[in-house]
Amino acid sequence: MSLVEPHLPADGFSELLGIEHLDAGDADAAARVAVTDSIRQPFGLVHGGVYPLLAETITSKATGEAVYQEGNVPLGQTNSATFLRPISDGHVTATARAIHRGRTSWVWDVECTDDEGRVAAVVRCVVAVRPRPSS
Amino acid sequence: MSLVEPHLPADGFSELLGIEHLDAGDADAAARVAVTDSIRQPFGLVHGGVYPLLAETITSKATGEAVYQEGNVPLGQTNSATFLRPISDGHVTATARAIHRGRTSWVWDVECTDDEGRVAAVVRCVVAVRPRPSS
Amino acid sequence: MSLVEPHLPADGFSELLGIEHLDAGDADAAARVAVTDSIRQPFGLVHGGVYPLLAETITSKATGEAVYQEGNVPLGQTNSATFLRPISDGHVTATARAIHRGRTSWVWDVECTDDEGRVAAVVRCVVAVRPRPSS
Amino acid sequence: MSLVEPHLPADGFSELLGIEHLDAGDADAAARVAVTDSIRQPFGLVHGGVYPLLAETITSKATGEAVYQEGNVPLGQTNSATFLRPISDGHVTATARAIHRGRTSWVWDVECTDDEGRVAAVVRCVVAVRPRPSS
Repeated sequence: MSLVEPHLPADGFSELLGIEHLDAGDADAAARVAVTDSIRQPFGLVHGGVYPLLAETITSKATGEAVYQEGNVPLGQTNSATFLRPISDGHVTATARAIHRGRTSWVWDVECTDDEGRVAAVVRCVVAVRPRPSS
Repeated sequence: MSLVEPHLPADGFSELLGIEHLDAGDADAAARVAVTDSIRQPFGLVHGGVYPLLAETITSKATGEAVYQEGNVPLGQTNSATFLRPISDGHVTATARAIHRGRTSWVWDVECTDDEGRVAAVVRCVVAVRPRPSS
Repeated sequence: MSLVEPHLPADGFSELLGIEHLDAGDADAAARVAVTDSIRQPFGLVHGGVYPLLAETITSKATGEAVYQEGNVPLGQTNSATFLRPISDGHVTATARAIHRGRTSWVWDVECTDDEGRVAAVVRCVVAVRPRPSS
Repeated sequence: MSLVEPHLPADGFSELLGIEHLDAGDADAAARVAVTDSIRQPFGLVHGGVYPLLAETITSKATGEAVYQEGNVPLGQTNSATFLRPISDGHVTATARAIHRGRTSWVWDVECTDDEGRVAAVVRCVVAVRPRPSS
């Protein structure tokens, strides 16, 4: 998937957390966030909520950029995260592959890795595709 | 479940987002966050990542407070969110009920509602209970 | 929800396993299956696949009966089961509540219990509602 | 993963449905079932419950065969299926890859395909590893 130039305004959450959107290489979407105390839970590990958040961010954005020009918008439907190993330092990098691009929904597989490439969490996202409300 | 006095240090994420931890009433844990542009996605709706994030925050915290004195810590295992309707203003309030308190894992049902009490998302969290690492 | 008289032909799987469809009382759909060696795994416990199977059976059927007369059919989208405690004898009873009845999808919570009413598994199902193909 | 010779008794469900366990090639476990009316729902499509059932069958079995000799047994924890496209004829083939082999749980990705290799469903299974009860 080659992403078209974004027609979507910026995302407040990405700014708040300093999420950097990356070139996805042979995947379909990617982003990373630096690990700071703001995204750690009390035991020094990355807060589990960061993984579904990153996954939702990049899969909604990539679905949106692909369907926006046909008059549609993305609408998250399910987001299911499985945690494999904690991260405590460096970055969390999320890399997404679209495994289904349907007329009414896209299905994504997202892998979240640490700076050594070890998988910390996997997330499956279903993003519905809905007609853009006329404004 | 009457929560014991927290023995856990504060959570950076809660501070960053201004999450308010609430009296859970007859549920087991609750918190809310005010809707601002920081947690909206580009179309003006609350970012889908907020729901699993809030759910993970309160279920990890409540599990942790219940098991910490026995020498254990919470470790998120799965977090599965289903989005029902968007929120664009007011607050997102998450209310959690523990539906299983096992020796090795707790299972939680979380409902996220808007200020009119309409359910915007439901989240199921499995939180593993693991021996506290000796420091 | 009062179920309309089924307009749907019988379901082969229900017959194969001897699934009994029950009066749902104040829930929206219910069924049970007797525990025999056919649905036990090698260690004598009910096979984990029975819970999502029962949940999918009753939520698809109930969604279908509600939307069929408007020219729609149900189409399973996600089925997410969490196992809480094993069952080894008696029956598995699944009871479903529709927590969202949308134009394009229904969301269901299903509880699977043993004959003592203990919850063995919970299942969340999203059933899409799609126009009936013209034949 | 080269599976050790099974030390586990046969599985009633596999027999009932005629599930054939296959050589997994470069995956970690595989099986298929022929599509007959017994596993079709009323509209002629494969019943959605077949996908989580097949996935649970092969991931529990493969986890069990790997951990049994160390005195452990598999215990399904979560099973989360996403349906992509229906199957109406031929076989359903499930192929599983272990993406995490932890001391206390294994995480699996399962793909269910039709006879043309098209992906009909993906399933993520978490299988807990527990000490074998002394008999």
